[in-house]
Amino acid sequence: MKIIEGGVCAAKGFTANGIRCGIRKNKDKRDLSLIFSEAVGSCAAVYTTNLVKGAPIAVTKQHISDGRAQAIICNSGNANTCNPNGEAVATEMAELLGKELNIKAEDVVVASTGVIGQPMDITPIANGIPELSKGLTADGSDLASEGIMTTDTVKKSIAVEFEIGGKICRIGGIAKGSGMIHPNMATMLVFITSDVAIEPSMLQKALSSDIADTFNMVSIDGDTSTNDMVVVLANGMAGNETITEEGEDYATFMKALNTITVHLCRMIAADGEGATKLLECRTFGASDKETAKTVAKSVICSSLLKAAMFGADANWGRVLCAIGYSGADVDVEKIDVDFESKAGKINVCKDGRAVDFSEEKAKEILLEDEINILIDLKSGTSEATAWGCDLTYDYVKINGDYRT
Amino acid sequence: MKIIEGGVCAAKGFTANGIRCGIRKNKDKRDLSLIFSEAVGSCAAVYTTNLVKGAPIAVTKQHISDGRAQAIICNSGNANTCNPNGEAVATEMAELLGKELNIKAEDVVVASTGVIGQPMDITPIANGIPELSKGLTADGSDLASEGIMTTDTVKKSIAVEFEIGGKICRIGGIAKGSGMIHPNMATMLVFITSDVAIEPSMLQKALSSDIADTFNMVSIDGDTSTNDMVVVLANGMAGNETITEEGEDYATFMKALNTITVHLCRMIAADGEGATKLLECRTFGASDKETAKTVAKSVICSSLLKAAMFGADANWGRVLCAIGYSGADVDVEKIDVDFESKAGKINVCKDGRAVDFSEEKAKEILLEDEINILIDLKSGTSEATAWGCDLTYDYVKINGDYRT
Repeated sequence: MKIIEGGVCAAKGFTANGIRCGIRKNKDKRDLSLIFSEAVGSCAAVYTTNLVKGAPIAVTKQHISDGRAQAIICNSGNANTCNPNGEAVATEMAELLGKELNIKAEDVVVASTGVIGQPMDITPIANGIPELSKGLTADGSDLASEGIMTTDTVKKSIAVEFEIGGKICRIGGIAKGSGMIHPNMATMLVFITSDVAIEPSMLQKALSSDIADTFNMVSIDGDTSTNDMVVVLANGMAGNETITEEGEDYATFMKALNTITVHLCRMIAADGEGATKLLECRTFGASDKETAKTVAKSVICSSLLKAAMFGADANWGRVLCAIGYSGADVDVEKIDVDFESKAGKINVCKDGRAVDFSEEKAKEILLEDEINILIDLKSGTSEATAWGCDLTYDYVKINGDYRT
Repeated sequence: MKIIEGGVCAAKGFTANGIRCGIRKNKDKRDLSLIFSEAVGSCAAVYTTNLVKGAPIAVTKQHISDGRAQAIICNSGNANTCNPNGEAVATEMAELLGKELNIKAEDVVVASTGVIGQPMDITPIANGIPELSKGLTADGSDLASEGIMTTDTVKKSIAVEFEIGGKICRIGGIAKGSGMIHPNMATMLVFITSDVAIEPSMLQKALSSDIADTFNMVSIDGDTSTNDMVVVLANGMAGNETITEEGEDYATFMKALNTITVHLCRMIAADGEGATKLLECRTFGASDKETAKTVAKSVICSSLLKAAMFGADANWGRVLCAIGYSGADVDVEKIDVDFESKAGKINVCKDGRAVDFSEEKAKEILLEDEINILIDLKSGTSEATAWGCDLTYDYVKINGDYRT
């Protein structure tokens, strides 16, 4: 498996584009993106678990209920949520795009991200769709990536190449992350494309099983957005024998998909609102998988620990505290905690107790921008990883006045 | 019922003191407090639900297992948690105090608050106990209050006078709050004293039932501390007929207790780490009590909403979003949201949808330092209230480098 360029256009038959159509106030910011496949493909998705759901989600669910899709349209700047005319606008986005591209409206995935509860005007989108469609190119992944960004500071993109049955296959993805990202749901916008041939049901199975250990293990601030979804579109143009069941080919595809999703998880966490550090919490020695996940998520979600990491403060008591209130059944007298980064690794807690360690060395380790928090529960063999970021002044600044 | 001065010394037979014994680095800060009752009294307590528990909790649980106590000793600056010799130190605190006051060590409640996982030296406490005890006075509530503060910026104290069976009764309390305060547990240090005569079992019943709607509905940052407890000591010196069952006297006592606890909840929330605003979230029209509580707590815990309140931004979408992911079974199409303060009241969301409102008026309302978030679920008659605060730059600053 090798990492390649191209993002969502890396796979055969995919083009993309992103333009500014005028939804956002910032005149320098693209706000409408499109991903298009030459052929109708298999499509799978997971959605937010929030009861308050963006209107596009209802429309997308309906459109891909047959497991097929050909294009993804997404705007930023307005979440199209809690509006009286939300579903009508989302449906119209798909219809207008369908007409322009000469494809079925029902084969269009619709997504929106931005502020909740503000009326959404179709006009700029309607006016933008011709330019958006005409500008589709195989180099357009970065433009599409820009168009879905909100408070993101970097584009999030990755693609890999691999083989199935002697055929060269590709899979790539782009993501929008930042605030409002919390476990137990598909909590960001992630669009993944592949030229692998795979049945819709197997694609859905692969996605659903993958996100349990990837996107559902990312937390920025514990809030759970109303609009987010992860969509995979696979058009079969790699020419491999269609994957219809579990087996070697499915396993290879799962591995490629996981490479994409883990990479995007790390990028999303590292670019959390105001974040200066990527935090990766790895739990091992757990009695079972659920315990490992519960512990890792609780630690990565602790505001107190996140603030300590911002200050490069080796306050391991907050790690222990977050494990203690996680609800997981652990033996606190067995817990070891290490902090690790490029600058080295240091043990700060052994058997649930303080150990003597060099505060200087710990500081040096925690001043790096990627920190691993390693937790050994010494009670079994299960493991889990969760991703998050530090809590900073800028998080407060960004979210203290997001709308104005 | 009337509010009176005196805090934990308002009730008959209580004295208190707070001194600096030298645990904390800050030489201007008191770090050892004592509350003493002339007579042994009924004692009830609730403790943190964190699996990682401070050593003093184990000792206190044992000491009040007979429902009796006579004194409360508490240090700040070190939580005496995750230390190899924690229980021995906590036990020694009680024994030294018992000797000094000529009371049973088993009648001493021990508490500690501060940093986790640092060795706790008994020496400054042992040296301080004589001065601490000799300085006990009926004016000492404020000194005791200062001695238990950590990052608190104001003393938290309240007392009320009421009558039971023609006898004048009093109840008062002091609290230490700030960060690490989260629902589902007794999550702060609260010491309440009363001269009411009440059986230990009825006192425990009153406290346990009260905290479900008071201290368990306060959240500062979603973290749940390892050390916190709420203790009530009632010495019977008011001379009322001992309360042994539910009835009018019990109801009167419950009402007085609730006045104390609600007041302290509001003070603790308003003084959350870095807070500039007290947030009170009131849910009504809920189908049942649990739904009302779940919704109120979810909203008060949302980092995104807390940051918006700091910025006086009427981002009601975040209220709806937090209701949506709360796990409560609500009809989102029925939800009304109002913001309210001294400056007035404004409806910002009706039937789960955007309404036209004056952003200027909303800003004026949200610039006040006590904000009510009113949520009408329009599905029943149950209500709940939760308390919290805004998320600010200073929260990050305080917690980014707490230990140094």
